[in-house]
Amino acid sequence: MGSGTEALFFPAERLREFTERVFRHLGVPDQEARVAADVLSCADRRGIDSHGVARLGTYVELLGAGRINPKPAPRLVRESPSTATLDGDNGLGLVVGPRANDIAMEKAEKVGTGWVSVCNTNHYGIAGYYPLRALERDMIGWSMTNSSRGVAPLWGAERMLGTNPIAIAFPGLEEPPIVVDMATSAVAYGKIEIAQRMGKSIPEGWAIDREGRPTTDPAAMTAGGALLPLGSDREHGGHKGYALSLAVDVLTAVLSGANWGPFAPSFVLRWTPPARSVGKGIGHFFGAMRIDAFRDPLEFKAQIDDLVRTLRKTRPAPGTSGPLLPGDPEREAEKERAVSGIPLLPAVLQDLRAISKQTGVPLE
Amino acid sequence: MGSGTEALFFPAERLREFTERVFRHLGVPDQEARVAADVLSCADRRGIDSHGVARLGTYVELLGAGRINPKPAPRLVRESPSTATLDGDNGLGLVVGPRANDIAMEKAEKVGTGWVSVCNTNHYGIAGYYPLRALERDMIGWSMTNSSRGVAPLWGAERMLGTNPIAIAFPGLEEPPIVVDMATSAVAYGKIEIAQRMGKSIPEGWAIDREGRPTTDPAAMTAGGALLPLGSDREHGGHKGYALSLAVDVLTAVLSGANWGPFAPSFVLRWTPPARSVGKGIGHFFGAMRIDAFRDPLEFKAQIDDLVRTLRKTRPAPGTSGPLLPGDPEREAEKERAVSGIPLLPAVLQDLRAISKQTGVPLE
Repeated sequence: MGSGTEALFFPAERLREFTERVFRHLGVPDQEARVAADVLSCADRRGIDSHGVARLGTYVELLGAGRINPKPAPRLVRESPSTATLDGDNGLGLVVGPRANDIAMEKAEKVGTGWVSVCNTNHYGIAGYYPLRALERDMIGWSMTNSSRGVAPLWGAERMLGTNPIAIAFPGLEEPPIVVDMATSAVAYGKIEIAQRMGKSIPEGWAIDREGRPTTDPAAMTAGGALLPLGSDREHGGHKGYALSLAVDVLTAVLSGANWGPFAPSFVLRWTPPARSVGKGIGHFFGAMRIDAFRDPLEFKAQIDDLVRTLRKTRPAPGTSGPLLPGDPEREAEKERAVSGIPLLPAVLQDLRAISKQTGVPLE
Repeated sequence: MGSGTEALFFPAERLREFTERVFRHLGVPDQEARVAADVLSCADRRGIDSHGVARLGTYVELLGAGRINPKPAPRLVRESPSTATLDGDNGLGLVVGPRANDIAMEKAEKVGTGWVSVCNTNHYGIAGYYPLRALERDMIGWSMTNSSRGVAPLWGAERMLGTNPIAIAFPGLEEPPIVVDMATSAVAYGKIEIAQRMGKSIPEGWAIDREGRPTTDPAAMTAGGALLPLGSDREHGGHKGYALSLAVDVLTAVLSGANWGPFAPSFVLRWTPPARSVGKGIGHFFGAMRIDAFRDPLEFKAQIDDLVRTLRKTRPAPGTSGPLLPGDPEREAEKERAVSGIPLLPAVLQDLRAISKQTGVPLE
């Protein structure tokens, strides 16, 4: 992975602790710093390097510049037995997200399901973190977030929507859970960057250039072009990926009072702010469904096992070893990294060392 | 559309009434026959010809053969304030679906949201019908269904999942609603059939042959091949379409106690039944969310208008007139067909005339 330079390995726990102490140093209260570090560490452990400690520098920068509130007091704006709208008081998404997710689960305990839409929040880490918490309580968990514009709607020539991920997880009994965690774009922005860094072209269907023409040049995308939605073009269902991304935007941002579409603020300090403000911060959406509100949980999980085993027995397509289950790659990474530690590329390590110097929190 | 033969046009209301009377003739009670006809008619009016009166023959055949119960007594299997599991008593999905959707909306009235998973049911028409009902009550509506196997999981060589559609709708104020209604496969089975009938090849990324190899020959797909999930291949996110399809399968069938995956029974009388039974019938899933449980409905709708107008102003990609909004094509068809009537291909008309003869219900 990356630019061919060698990674150094660090135990996940050491990075998690470093992250926690850095957040505390920046004014995040103890309990919140622990949760925020746990969310970032979850990404590192599950092999989603783009969303883990590699992002710590950005959080530090935004907290340092006063752009994120280290001590938010999230406020319930509206509530019903099964729903809530939460104003995150411009806190870290890594803090506001888990709080909102907890509210969804508490509501589910009482009335079967809970659904929480969140405004005035910031980047919340990997979408998959949240449904994993629901699994621990015998619930099906959902999470979505919007994000700053990077994706063109089908037949558009410019960035209008975020990569707006959807995560949902279902527990098994003896089999591991099914964990869906996917951006609604054809591909992640990180893959374009990697290709650009390596001087490689990208497949058709990933991106358009600034004129809205299909491109295989990663530089043409990063220089004012856009990602394409899942499905890529009309013929292959690009209108469907676009529709999913839009649905996520509505549930996370329009429903909560956050900024939607092209007006979702960027996660990066030096980017130009959106042309208009149509709400507060970005938006998330969480759901929790108590399994026993629908079916006996043991029965449900035994059926999930059966479904998982049935899918694993699918006749493999030529040249493959057959279908995976959603969540398999992350689980595989988690197993490996529990032994090997988390690989950090030199550029990431350099960032962390700079943070260590700046904050006085020792890294090594 | 179709095989180049000329269509005859019928007023939507006449076809709806014909359908209603045919269902009544087959033992469906008056009120249920009206609802079932309304669901089919909705597809015809919105231009989704594959799911409208063209399917009446299949329903008639299954009712006639005693494979569908004309007078079901759907039964609540489990319930919480915001959830229910409904056993459809092997009724028409066109009857059981609206009933379950009503329960979801009633629960939403009381506790903010309602979620109903349904087993022991049959084909329920277009997924988009159900969220349209929620819009009438200032709610966001959701609907999903599983269906008999036709789609291969990514890296699989055989049909394991249905085209498992997802529908969700959001109301606007002055602008029409956003109505997402999409199969989770790259393309609908109907498009393969049309290409085959016309002797045309299909694009790469739509289907595989019986050996699991990519094919552009529609006959190779229909003769034991499979559709590909949205995203088509690994590089373009085929694992995401597969994951969505699987999530729909769990919410509709595993959660309710219906048959899932490759064991979902076929909607067609003469197909070989699945190898195993793992539940009852197929499964649906409905959701309703009261908007005022999250945000002031007027504010929400005004923001939807703003979002819709913002997206319509997207700079168009070369050679296009710019992005559509989900629901635009169906609304366009509805407008046209209100004037022109519903076009029936000769083969469909022949079927309807045979039904008319068999049942004594006049068509013309």
